[in-house]
Amino acid sequence: MKLATLRDGSRDGSLIVVRGQGDRYVSAREVAGTLQSALDEWQRCEPALRRLAGDLDSGKLTGEVLDPTKLDAPLPRAYEWVDGSAYINHIVLVRKARGAEPPETLRTDPLVYQGGSGKLLGPCDDIPLPNPDWGLDFEAEVCVLLGDTPRGVRASDAGPYVRLLMLANDITFRNLIPAELAKGFGFFTSKPATAFSPFAITPDELGDSYRDGRVHLRLRSTYNGQLVGDPDAGPEMHFSFFQLLEHIAKTRAYTAGTILGSGTVSNEDRARGISCLAERRMIETIENGKPTTPFMQSGDRIQIEMLDAAGVSLFGRIDQKVVSA
Amino acid sequence: MKLATLRDGSRDGSLIVVRGQGDRYVSAREVAGTLQSALDEWQRCEPALRRLAGDLDSGKLTGEVLDPTKLDAPLPRAYEWVDGSAYINHIVLVRKARGAEPPETLRTDPLVYQGGSGKLLGPCDDIPLPNPDWGLDFEAEVCVLLGDTPRGVRASDAGPYVRLLMLANDITFRNLIPAELAKGFGFFTSKPATAFSPFAITPDELGDSYRDGRVHLRLRSTYNGQLVGDPDAGPEMHFSFFQLLEHIAKTRAYTAGTILGSGTVSNEDRARGISCLAERRMIETIENGKPTTPFMQSGDRIQIEMLDAAGVSLFGRIDQKVVSA
Repeated sequence: MKLATLRDGSRDGSLIVVRGQGDRYVSAREVAGTLQSALDEWQRCEPALRRLAGDLDSGKLTGEVLDPTKLDAPLPRAYEWVDGSAYINHIVLVRKARGAEPPETLRTDPLVYQGGSGKLLGPCDDIPLPNPDWGLDFEAEVCVLLGDTPRGVRASDAGPYVRLLMLANDITFRNLIPAELAKGFGFFTSKPATAFSPFAITPDELGDSYRDGRVHLRLRSTYNGQLVGDPDAGPEMHFSFFQLLEHIAKTRAYTAGTILGSGTVSNEDRARGISCLAERRMIETIENGKPTTPFMQSGDRIQIEMLDAAGVSLFGRIDQKVVSA
Repeated sequence: MKLATLRDGSRDGSLIVVRGQGDRYVSAREVAGTLQSALDEWQRCEPALRRLAGDLDSGKLTGEVLDPTKLDAPLPRAYEWVDGSAYINHIVLVRKARGAEPPETLRTDPLVYQGGSGKLLGPCDDIPLPNPDWGLDFEAEVCVLLGDTPRGVRASDAGPYVRLLMLANDITFRNLIPAELAKGFGFFTSKPATAFSPFAITPDELGDSYRDGRVHLRLRSTYNGQLVGDPDAGPEMHFSFFQLLEHIAKTRAYTAGTILGSGTVSNEDRARGISCLAERRMIETIENGKPTTPFMQSGDRIQIEMLDAAGVSLFGRIDQKVVSA
């Protein structure tokens, strides 16, 4: 089942159910007005939403044509956005890029940060760039949407708390990071609003590609019309979503609708390209002594999506343009 | 005007209006069901809520007796909880306690971290202590609740974005901090759910004590029945709430209901005591070579409040007990 949020002028938009091909939809208002309210009462809502999805897929309902530019983030405002950094290759490259050492506990203790979640970007929203010197970068990620999750949940029991999956563009101002991290409290102004994919989809939509708390499919990033990365999001995700969940649940519980991210997807094989410009700049530095790719500029375009074997865009496509602001 | 949230079995509870003395209340359901919905439509709701408060204060409405143990946090789940660290004395003492240097930009660049906001504790909720070795500590703070705030707002224009004020107990596991901060991404498991005062109050309730984006009143912390601190929250707040707001709005906007905290209130004058045990332990170390006060244990009680000149508890009292969990 694919769910999405249509902009309607309200803060949370209107929940819609989208058919498998991602091109037509029906309103879910009879079941739940918003995705947050569906997640709040998932036991009651899920079967009814699945019936709508089934009727769309079978043709019993024809629905309306979907215009992705009319979509907001599946959750336009969320109660938490917790982002991991589970791909070792990304951590090693990006820290090298800013002259920082990877943490000693790189392979034993997950890295996570708490992101801002009150105002999230829709899949086709412009990326505002107030200052080109801040070093705007995209970061292509996979994330999960949690149901109510108790404190102390273990990785081995984490599966049922994953309600839906999405893609994210965890937009970053690279040049604000060093001074910010030097203060010791983590990212803040270096992380503006994050953008999310058109659809939040149930795990079964991924079939066998979703296993062991990882999504074993390629995440495609297209930058200014050129495919720049298609790393496999599965095997090199050192900590699975289940392990990330165990980590973040060590000292507190989570409310339904919490978003948990994988961190920038990255493969050791250079042929798989990059999911953020910081990695490419580091590779250039290693190979040529200095970075030659600039950070994102006004007018640049970034597209992020994941295709199934038949070429269907599973989560729809994040498709954003940078604008001076 | 004093607002509060009565537990009713729902996720967001029921909004109530509390009279000035803090002892009686009326339901606000005819205006807004929840505090979040009132903040979402503040222009419409504020006058109607103020009328209810006026009728309670004048005796036109008698209301019902308020039992603070029936209250949840004013926002049981919030879209963001951004916590500053604006008291220089606290930063210097606590960093000394863990052998870390204060950041070079201590007096020019505010320290803030993004806290978890999906599940917040009510004023009389137990503090769960899963492991006494984690070094449980309280942190008494003042905070503001924001209305919709655009990116780029300046300190000089910040006043109107402050809708309400609250107190917070920013509960911390001190012994989880060093390893967590060493990873470079800031606090995470070291910060379990934060607790908030019974009432969220409008700035006018503070009269002249609220000026220049600071609350010029003493914040009283009573630990196991003994007053351990009553520092003035005003003059030593190096960055005002308005300056903190300018800082956090540098790269993104905030949705109504975002909570912004001051950080642990702390005065240089040792006679004013402490607002967290880490400070007392550092003072003991400076004076006697080692800390003698242990962190919080099961059965301990912490009470946090702020009194006006007449002795009325402005925000009601945070009154929590530690329980093994």
